[in-house]
Amino acid sequence: MNENKPLIFITNDDGYLAKGVSVLAETVKDMGEIVVFVPDLPRSGMSGAITTSHALRAHIYKREENITTYVCNGTPVDCVKLALNEFLDRKPDIILSGINHGSNAGISVLYSGTMGAAIEGCIFDIPSVGFSLCDHAADADFEETKKVVRKIAKKVLEKGLPKRVCLNVNIPAGEVKGIKVATQTQGKWVSEYHRSKDGNGNDVFWLTGNFENWETDNEKTDEWVLANGYAAVVPVKIDATAYEFVDELNNLLIDKIL
Amino acid sequence: MNENKPLIFITNDDGYLAKGVSVLAETVKDMGEIVVFVPDLPRSGMSGAITTSHALRAHIYKREENITTYVCNGTPVDCVKLALNEFLDRKPDIILSGINHGSNAGISVLYSGTMGAAIEGCIFDIPSVGFSLCDHAADADFEETKKVVRKIAKKVLEKGLPKRVCLNVNIPAGEVKGIKVATQTQGKWVSEYHRSKDGNGNDVFWLTGNFENWETDNEKTDEWVLANGYAAVVPVKIDATAYEFVDELNNLLIDKIL
Repeated sequence: MNENKPLIFITNDDGYLAKGVSVLAETVKDMGEIVVFVPDLPRSGMSGAITTSHALRAHIYKREENITTYVCNGTPVDCVKLALNEFLDRKPDIILSGINHGSNAGISVLYSGTMGAAIEGCIFDIPSVGFSLCDHAADADFEETKKVVRKIAKKVLEKGLPKRVCLNVNIPAGEVKGIKVATQTQGKWVSEYHRSKDGNGNDVFWLTGNFENWETDNEKTDEWVLANGYAAVVPVKIDATAYEFVDELNNLLIDKIL
Repeated sequence: MNENKPLIFITNDDGYLAKGVSVLAETVKDMGEIVVFVPDLPRSGMSGAITTSHALRAHIYKREENITTYVCNGTPVDCVKLALNEFLDRKPDIILSGINHGSNAGISVLYSGTMGAAIEGCIFDIPSVGFSLCDHAADADFEETKKVVRKIAKKVLEKGLPKRVCLNVNIPAGEVKGIKVATQTQGKWVSEYHRSKDGNGNDVFWLTGNFENWETDNEKTDEWVLANGYAAVVPVKIDATAYEFVDELNNLLIDKIL
């Protein structure tokens, strides 16, 4: 490896054949040495999942000038863990995850494999950013997205991020007016399943659904920012403690003797 | 369903055959009507993962007095989503997840399927608690744990929890001195893989590792509380926004025009 250049580690959750990850590597390849380490299958919705039931393996799939691509039989978090523990000679200077085909705004940050990988990078104390384009199409147009990626990757590579904070960047389809810092929109998914029948007439359930936005008028939220044509950057924490509730919880459980 | 009694929804990530989930249902069965809806296989480490690649199905596995058990081919979060969208006639009054065989303290809250399910319950605006015993043994002794479960389940059923906050309850093996409210211990897993060979002599990697605690002297953390013989209750948020970093991030990305 070339130790003079920054090491840029790239992963995703749509797998090694996705357009989004190739675009991401191409977009930043002049900024450092690139290692792409990605799942061998689409692993959308994998969140922070890790593989505990079988062994992992990984191999080099492609070597191009400045870009080495590994394929791994694990989740996005497995890719980060396995690469950093066993495959890389040095610690990456930045971890970029994506570019996801589809939004990870709002509550979807909790289900997203793209963000699972970015959060894992953050646990490793490496500045980490997840990128998602709000377009599920396999051949989505990433031209505007590339500008957002370059701008944010450059800034983060230059300035870093605070400990235990990573970024969830969502980019609207079509023209992008600019970038806005935002908060995670409160809401939930509703009407989540399409019921159909298998070949024997038994009910089966396919995940689908709509995001019910509980803060449609809040201009600070990522969903508002996206709906108004801007890329939304939400800073995401890895410490999930609800500190503001600690005292109340102490009162709630006041009798703590068994 | 009996609409007079509270509906207690139970799931886990160790699957329908795990001792922990049977113990959990038995421990609270006098408090309400019990629906157990659990994965058909161990799904440890599944975090907030959802199944997007194939259809889900579920069936009743067992009907006992006051306890109906469903088995589902999904993750812990799938179990919560599918049951609440398609199988239950009314909204549960409480969601209990576990009892997990093994700790989910510290950073493990982010990988835990047990906590993935509790977090999903919280997204559905239902008071939700994940329970984990710090003992991986399949035949672990849950006698002390039952006391903690009863106490917390009763309190939460009676008083509820704030919106967007659920509880991560970890219980030490052996005698339990009492219950303490705690914070998520900062730290990370290290030496995460055991390398071995498959039948063809290729490298394969098995997940293992040790938790490196960065706050060994902090008496407020869940790891400290557990090491000192108490059950640790951490309030966990579903809003991951790092609000304290929003202003700084606005400065970092000051030039937001593309």
